[in-house]
Amino acid sequence: MESMMIYMPIAMALLGLIYMVIKQKWVMKQNPGDGKMKEISDHIYEGALAFLNAEYRLLAIFVLIVSIALAAVSFIVPTTHWLIVIAFVFGAIFSAFAGNIGMKIATKTNVRTTQAARTSLPNALKISFGGGTVMGLGVAGLAVLGLTAFFIFFFWFFMGSEWTNTMDMTIVLETLAGFSLGAESIALFARVGGGIYTKAADVGADLVGKVEAGIPEDDPRNPATIADNVGDNVGDVAGMGADLFGSYVATVLAAMVLGNYVIKDMGGMIDDAFGGIGPILLPMAIAGAGIIISVIGTMLVKIKSNDAKEAQVMGALNVGNWTSIALVAISCFGLVTWMLPETMKMNFFGEGLQEISSMRVFYATLVGLVVGAVISSVTEYYTGLGKKPILKIVQQSSTGAGTNIIAGLATGMISTFPSVLLFAGAIWASYAFAGFYGVALAASAMMATTAMQLAIDAFGPISDNAGGIAEMSEQEPIVRERTDILDSVGNTTAATGKGFAIASAALTSLALFAAYVTFTGIDGINIFKAPVLAMLFVGGMVPVVFSALAMNAVGKAAMEMVQEVRRQFREIPGIMEGTGKPEYDKCVAISTEASLKEMMLPGLLTIGFPLIIAFVPMIFGMNPLAIAEMLGGYMAGVTVSGVLWAIFQNNAGGAWDNAKKSFEAGVMINGEMTYKGSEAHKAAVTGDTVGDPFKDTSGPSMNILIKLTCLIGLVIAPILGGHSVETGLAQTATTEVVGDTYAKKVYVDFIIESDEFAKAVVSITNVKGEDISKEELVVSGTKKEVDAKISELKGQATQFKMDVTDKRPNEVK
Amino acid sequence: MESMMIYMPIAMALLGLIYMVIKQKWVMKQNPGDGKMKEISDHIYEGALAFLNAEYRLLAIFVLIVSIALAAVSFIVPTTHWLIVIAFVFGAIFSAFAGNIGMKIATKTNVRTTQAARTSLPNALKISFGGGTVMGLGVAGLAVLGLTAFFIFFFWFFMGSEWTNTMDMTIVLETLAGFSLGAESIALFARVGGGIYTKAADVGADLVGKVEAGIPEDDPRNPATIADNVGDNVGDVAGMGADLFGSYVATVLAAMVLGNYVIKDMGGMIDDAFGGIGPILLPMAIAGAGIIISVIGTMLVKIKSNDAKEAQVMGALNVGNWTSIALVAISCFGLVTWMLPETMKMNFFGEGLQEISSMRVFYATLVGLVVGAVISSVTEYYTGLGKKPILKIVQQSSTGAGTNIIAGLATGMISTFPSVLLFAGAIWASYAFAGFYGVALAASAMMATTAMQLAIDAFGPISDNAGGIAEMSEQEPIVRERTDILDSVGNTTAATGKGFAIASAALTSLALFAAYVTFTGIDGINIFKAPVLAMLFVGGMVPVVFSALAMNAVGKAAMEMVQEVRRQFREIPGIMEGTGKPEYDKCVAISTEASLKEMMLPGLLTIGFPLIIAFVPMIFGMNPLAIAEMLGGYMAGVTVSGVLWAIFQNNAGGAWDNAKKSFEAGVMINGEMTYKGSEAHKAAVTGDTVGDPFKDTSGPSMNILIKLTCLIGLVIAPILGGHSVETGLAQTATTEVVGDTYAKKVYVDFIIESDEFAKAVVSITNVKGEDISKEELVVSGTKKEVDAKISELKGQATQFKMDVTDKRPNEVK
Repeated sequence: MESMMIYMPIAMALLGLIYMVIKQKWVMKQNPGDGKMKEISDHIYEGALAFLNAEYRLLAIFVLIVSIALAAVSFIVPTTHWLIVIAFVFGAIFSAFAGNIGMKIATKTNVRTTQAARTSLPNALKISFGGGTVMGLGVAGLAVLGLTAFFIFFFWFFMGSEWTNTMDMTIVLETLAGFSLGAESIALFARVGGGIYTKAADVGADLVGKVEAGIPEDDPRNPATIADNVGDNVGDVAGMGADLFGSYVATVLAAMVLGNYVIKDMGGMIDDAFGGIGPILLPMAIAGAGIIISVIGTMLVKIKSNDAKEAQVMGALNVGNWTSIALVAISCFGLVTWMLPETMKMNFFGEGLQEISSMRVFYATLVGLVVGAVISSVTEYYTGLGKKPILKIVQQSSTGAGTNIIAGLATGMISTFPSVLLFAGAIWASYAFAGFYGVALAASAMMATTAMQLAIDAFGPISDNAGGIAEMSEQEPIVRERTDILDSVGNTTAATGKGFAIASAALTSLALFAAYVTFTGIDGINIFKAPVLAMLFVGGMVPVVFSALAMNAVGKAAMEMVQEVRRQFREIPGIMEGTGKPEYDKCVAISTEASLKEMMLPGLLTIGFPLIIAFVPMIFGMNPLAIAEMLGGYMAGVTVSGVLWAIFQNNAGGAWDNAKKSFEAGVMINGEMTYKGSEAHKAAVTGDTVGDPFKDTSGPSMNILIKLTCLIGLVIAPILGGHSVETGLAQTATTEVVGDTYAKKVYVDFIIESDEFAKAVVSITNVKGEDISKEELVVSGTKKEVDAKISELKGQATQFKMDVTDKRPNEVK
Repeated sequence: MESMMIYMPIAMALLGLIYMVIKQKWVMKQNPGDGKMKEISDHIYEGALAFLNAEYRLLAIFVLIVSIALAAVSFIVPTTHWLIVIAFVFGAIFSAFAGNIGMKIATKTNVRTTQAARTSLPNALKISFGGGTVMGLGVAGLAVLGLTAFFIFFFWFFMGSEWTNTMDMTIVLETLAGFSLGAESIALFARVGGGIYTKAADVGADLVGKVEAGIPEDDPRNPATIADNVGDNVGDVAGMGADLFGSYVATVLAAMVLGNYVIKDMGGMIDDAFGGIGPILLPMAIAGAGIIISVIGTMLVKIKSNDAKEAQVMGALNVGNWTSIALVAISCFGLVTWMLPETMKMNFFGEGLQEISSMRVFYATLVGLVVGAVISSVTEYYTGLGKKPILKIVQQSSTGAGTNIIAGLATGMISTFPSVLLFAGAIWASYAFAGFYGVALAASAMMATTAMQLAIDAFGPISDNAGGIAEMSEQEPIVRERTDILDSVGNTTAATGKGFAIASAALTSLALFAAYVTFTGIDGINIFKAPVLAMLFVGGMVPVVFSALAMNAVGKAAMEMVQEVRRQFREIPGIMEGTGKPEYDKCVAISTEASLKEMMLPGLLTIGFPLIIAFVPMIFGMNPLAIAEMLGGYMAGVTVSGVLWAIFQNNAGGAWDNAKKSFEAGVMINGEMTYKGSEAHKAAVTGDTVGDPFKDTSGPSMNILIKLTCLIGLVIAPILGGHSVETGLAQTATTEVVGDTYAKKVYVDFIIESDEFAKAVVSITNVKGEDISKEELVVSGTKKEVDAKISELKGQATQFKMDVTDKRPNEVK
């Protein structure tokens, strides 16, 4: 059983995917309605596919370029294996495929939900949530399948499927990082491009349609209306899916890297029933279990009464969600105690090796689950209808757009307070429990329910679309009422889902950051070194500039849309009378092209900065470890600032949105009921205009920015530092020294060894009866200097009547 | 000559102050005009004094509380001397006194400028700039006078005015930090309180006066109009003055601390003509020279023609500014080569001791001067009338307030790009030239022109007030035209002044940060330790929340003002007809009280967070050095995020302001000239409403937040780490070991030594013929463990036939 554990996650992923296919077939069998309903739905479906196809074409070019770059790197740098290219390509393909499944099912489910809503609310929920489930399982299943399959392959390829040493495993995991990089690259296109798409279409449709032509929202005469609906799917479904796909893969990968490091701390080898790789397998096993748990969770989401209201629907979702979180906690307990050695040794910076019991790792996973749950409540508090911050924004709308904007900005800014304290507490606690392995496993546990989270999340835009189709196809009011109930719940889950996505991105980045430090072999990132501090500043600036570029991109893309809609209104005869047919596809094409074009600059910023920081100083001959530390400072800056700006922008945007929505039911301002159309409402609409790119474009893009930055760092880590750069040479030299009064062991571990530069940690263990003390000396300098110093140390040892034995145990394959 | 150098800065400061008094007398002798002009001016003067008095009352309480706390700390912690309390109180008094001088002269100069403008523009400039000069020299003179005087006193008190060792000098400088803390505390009140005051009065006056009652701005019938004009002085004059006073003192102090560290790196003693404290005196000498240079610079600011336009006025200011920058560069060259040893040794983290020539220190000062100049141009580019970003915001105003806001936000965000790259480059370059001593001296050189910068800066609001008085007292149009020329130039200098203030705050914080690390004796701040990383996150969050609180504070204070103005309009008969007299003082009182009340919460956040981080874990028995590192992470987070938010908010606010102002002369939008009163203009006004608290309240407050955070860290540094905590006991123990084959010197330096915890650095110097190699071992743990380990090391040394001599050389006085 234990030895087969490596195949467990793959089996679970396949089970999840099988269930997904069954669910997909079931959804597709549902009645897709008729006539106009079907027509509109088909338009949305085709528009979404058009975007995907355009995106994939661009992606293909991007993947090709990056592949060539990676291949070149793997050719030049001996420690980087060319298989990373294959992993990268497959990471991109798997993520794109998952996005494809999600978009297709979402755009097929919407009309079926409308049709079901004609007769039954429970059925409508069942179908819309079924669509969400397909999306969720597709993403999670493919993520686990791909990552695990490649791990098994690389483990066989590099190590013959048997434990050799941590150095070989590092190569396995470094190559595996390509898969994660591929996945996250797709996320860049899907999340940032999608974000620009959805807002460009939205703003463009509103500006000409509602404002200039005076026709209502979702009016079929507006050529941009289909693009607008496509946008909901592109941004909220595909974007979110790609985001979480990337987080999922990166989290598990980072935890595996840190698991390997635990083994290293335990002496480079452990004796367990899992072939000596229990700590590495554990995060994959948790991910695998999470898929099955999510399946169970989704099965629990159902309502019975046709007269159910929001509270019942929300309740049904909560039952599923909380059950899966509880089940993940239980399975974590089981897996941790089963798969990990009862006591481990972990190296805590500045505190040396400590003994960590497996129970403490379990506590770390609980920290992750708590964070996932609490961040949703925090987000809900700052952005939820009827909550205090929203009511305050509503009040401030009465004195104009200016005060509304200030109140919204302030709300978003203040919301960073509990969120950041929560993250900081989580980092601290999970680290205190089990070091950075604990931080990574906290993230893994939180991400285990990804399929469930995505199902809850995707159900929102599906219901939103269903409502739009009901409106456009002029259904009876009861249909719209039913979809509105689902849509309203969907709005709440969308906000909390964004909180989950930020939390996952933040923890993932931290885990990647930790993995990066261990990969490069630096002794930490000391911001008291000025170049590192300078890069911390630069890193902090990048999310701010990225957000600005994304916001400007929306503006530019929207302007192109405006011009196209104006042209159609002008040139197509009878379009306003409903006799001429608008060219929906042209608007879709414009949104598609503009969004992909406009995401280039922010994308370049994301990818370019870490590369410049890594390679420009290298050209000038800077010490690679110093560069690694600088890049680490940059990564930390991007992460800290990116998380802050993500929370700020998402919550400010969400708050403005709901402040505006509050006017629909009417709000009490200065003792007067105020409704839509009032001056205060207009001010709130202005706030929402500002909030739209915040919450749907620049805010969510931060997730990708921080993860991708850390991943790029991880992929170039072997170039900067890591293990030996001379293939075929020994990595470590062990010198055992036995003196006359006590045994002394000198262990020399080369962190880096090239012609120009070498760095070695010399551990000196003094044994005197029962007492063991340890001291470490770091020796660095030119290869020659370091060799000299080590000879000198050895010399001293022999001189003082100690025997010296020299070992070079590990040959790199 | 050299031995008297310690008195040079004090002499220069006194010279500057004498010049200030002469200038002050000259300004006061000018014709203050008559009748209504004088009346209005008196109202403003009294309002400003009312604010100052209320502020001082509150300050007195604050200073008392902090003094008691500091006294308690100095009683409990033996290394902290009670004299720090005296230094703190005097720091507060000096800063308050400087603010008082500035406010008084500004409110007396305004009306004299108006009067002069009735006949001559050159005279008006001479007077308004004369007032600015008084302000600038008051601030700079008192700053240098106070700091130098206390240094001389402590140097005598603790060291008998003669060099003993770096440890004693550390105590001198730690005590001196109290002066800086006092100054910065005043800045908190002046900048944050003043920022809230000015915007509360402004918004309150506009909301009821312009919007509700329909009377123009600065109309004497509006009860809040005097408060509004007082606000300009409170915020722009006193706030800016206190800000730069704090930066000036803190920068010089930090440079002195790092100078002491240079001496430590050079073996704890240098032999120079300046009593062995050249590197410590240098920053003070540069500051002293800067005062005289500023006097020269201000003398050069004059125009001749009565028909001069903005360009000539700006040109006159530029001549003065650039001349003083050039003179500072020259004096830096002279002072650096004269006062520093030709070659110094500095310890670069991770690279060990390096030889640094004094010329490299000079290059570092040049870096500071360049940053000060370039940041002004960057600020000018992003906020200046007619510049591309402003034109873009104007264009975006045509589609409504929403797009105007987005464009303004994006402009502010993008402006972080060049600014941060500039700072990062400056940190890197000045560090590469001369370590953190170089960074601190870069800041010192930049700050040397403080008096000149403040003169240029204060001249703006004085001219603004002069214009207001001209309007209110119904002068001939030519008077207003002349003051408008000055005001327009003043707007530009206000924006660039803000850039200078940010740059100074950023560099000061970095210098303080470096001083903090050396004070605590930690080996750097490693963000790969999770608690440190967590604190980096928390630190990053604080500026965001602080900004939100400041923005909300403006809203609340403005609402109180609105109610008071409404009450007066309702209750005072004949107020609108001009027969009833508005109660200006009540509005002034409300602004004063509300602003001081509302600054409590952000102030508490600023002071509370570092204290919580330092003392709560201490109660739980955490290792003080680990806490010191965490606090360092927090400080870095606050600084990085604070600098970003300062740039973002200041520039966004400045950009909105000038986008709105662009409409006054008319702007071309979509091929049409658009003016005030258009829809686009209204949108621009909304943007300006959002920008007001950004640029005048929350943005500038960031400077104080980051400096005060780092100063608090510096003041509690001795508690966290630093040298021995057992008074009367020796700080260091030197063990000289001479072996049979080579001489070996073991030097034990206790970084901390208490009953619970001890940490020592054991430096082992191997001398073998010409070759000297050095290795350092850090030993930490309980006192008992460390003692045991050191005995063991000594034991090894004796065992291997080495003589051991034990020295405990330094007795703490």
